[in-house]
Amino acid sequence: MAISGVNALPISFVAHFLAVVAAVLVLVWNISFRGGLAWDAENKDLIFNLHPVLMLIGLIIIGGQAIMSYKSLPLRKPEKKLIHLVLHAIALILGIFGICAAFKNHNELGFANLYSLHSWLGIAVISLYGLQWIYGFVIFFYPGGSSAIRGESLPWHSLAGTFIYILAVGTASLGYLEKLTFLQNNGLAKYGPEAILVNCTAIITILYGTFVILTTLSGSSPPAGGGVGEDDYSSSYTAIN
Amino acid sequence: MAISGVNALPISFVAHFLAVVAAVLVLVWNISFRGGLAWDAENKDLIFNLHPVLMLIGLIIIGGQAIMSYKSLPLRKPEKKLIHLVLHAIALILGIFGICAAFKNHNELGFANLYSLHSWLGIAVISLYGLQWIYGFVIFFYPGGSSAIRGESLPWHSLAGTFIYILAVGTASLGYLEKLTFLQNNGLAKYGPEAILVNCTAIITILYGTFVILTTLSGSSPPAGGGVGEDDYSSSYTAIN
Repeated sequence: MAISGVNALPISFVAHFLAVVAAVLVLVWNISFRGGLAWDAENKDLIFNLHPVLMLIGLIIIGGQAIMSYKSLPLRKPEKKLIHLVLHAIALILGIFGICAAFKNHNELGFANLYSLHSWLGIAVISLYGLQWIYGFVIFFYPGGSSAIRGESLPWHSLAGTFIYILAVGTASLGYLEKLTFLQNNGLAKYGPEAILVNCTAIITILYGTFVILTTLSGSSPPAGGGVGEDDYSSSYTAIN
Repeated sequence: MAISGVNALPISFVAHFLAVVAAVLVLVWNISFRGGLAWDAENKDLIFNLHPVLMLIGLIIIGGQAIMSYKSLPLRKPEKKLIHLVLHAIALILGIFGICAAFKNHNELGFANLYSLHSWLGIAVISLYGLQWIYGFVIFFYPGGSSAIRGESLPWHSLAGTFIYILAVGTASLGYLEKLTFLQNNGLAKYGPEAILVNCTAIITILYGTFVILTTLSGSSPPAGGGVGEDDYSSSYTAIN
């Protein structure tokens, strides 16, 4: 499935705009409405608040930038590959810290862990994300597979990455709904400003994910100056996508 | 994004198996655990129980069959097109009844409507599904656009359909989590059999959706006997996908 005649770069600009809006909304929610962020605190809610902030800004937003960078940046292949893997590493590390914040909050309050669909899918997403990163590193970066192995792996790497990313966005949406349902069961107004804010953050997150995936279906940007790297198979990537 | 060398038909068999499992699980949940199904009843819960059953079996399972039928059935294009649009119409009608059941339950119990992310996305999904069906009917079936318009519309029809279907599966997942969270807030065991059943139904639903989308990315089946219809552009569809 490819969008012919559409370049990834302008689509990625829409995604960047949505990323800024989503990041601002999640910070406003957790700092202004939920009381702030802390790794150690008497008020254990502040530890939990790190979870949505790190998952959204880390795994979803920086993870999305990692995906888009490969397709939209007008650079040579080796540079794009390095940016792609470094951004995904940052996304993964922030995601792991975000998950630890949720466990830390639950454990310090004596809450049950890992009973909800959100938590089950969250563990699946972070595990698949880590495996995909290691696989990508070994096959495409160091030591790197043969040209034939890389060529054959690329469509599957791209397909698996798209699947994991859509699952991550879905899991984030489950998280917004779960947290808001808890708050509403404890008396938060169903149509109040915080409920609207959280639902809008979820919708902006889904729209961001949609534009990230649209970028991967669009045509890639040629390197500035028109040079093609030695290790460049953008063209096969474009054909595959 | 296409999976080269993989035929849609065997992938669709996995999807059919998952569909049967998901349908059995949602019926066991709502009939054995939640007390049964009814459009009119003193016990208003029975009205609500129609909602997950109709949304899953209608919009998700039959909707997925509609998507796969176009790619996996070894028939001529006009026959596949008719099956595709009839199955989507059935999915849409069952989905609308399923949404009405949720509203009917809320209204008869005096519960608030349309405050949750699940409900917001649900309204978006059913509206987009309806628009997509009407657009497909007018452009590809009756009266039908010119060959050029159909050719240009097809990749967008396919892209929009994929997006709406993924959003539908995500919205279903939100529904499972929302309902289970309500039940758990009212005392249902967090690790009990019903919680495990609902989470497993959600995971089977997501796996079914994944195999439906994988079918659309695979090679289509040639018509039995090798005939190619007058109105056949399977080849351009395959190239696009």
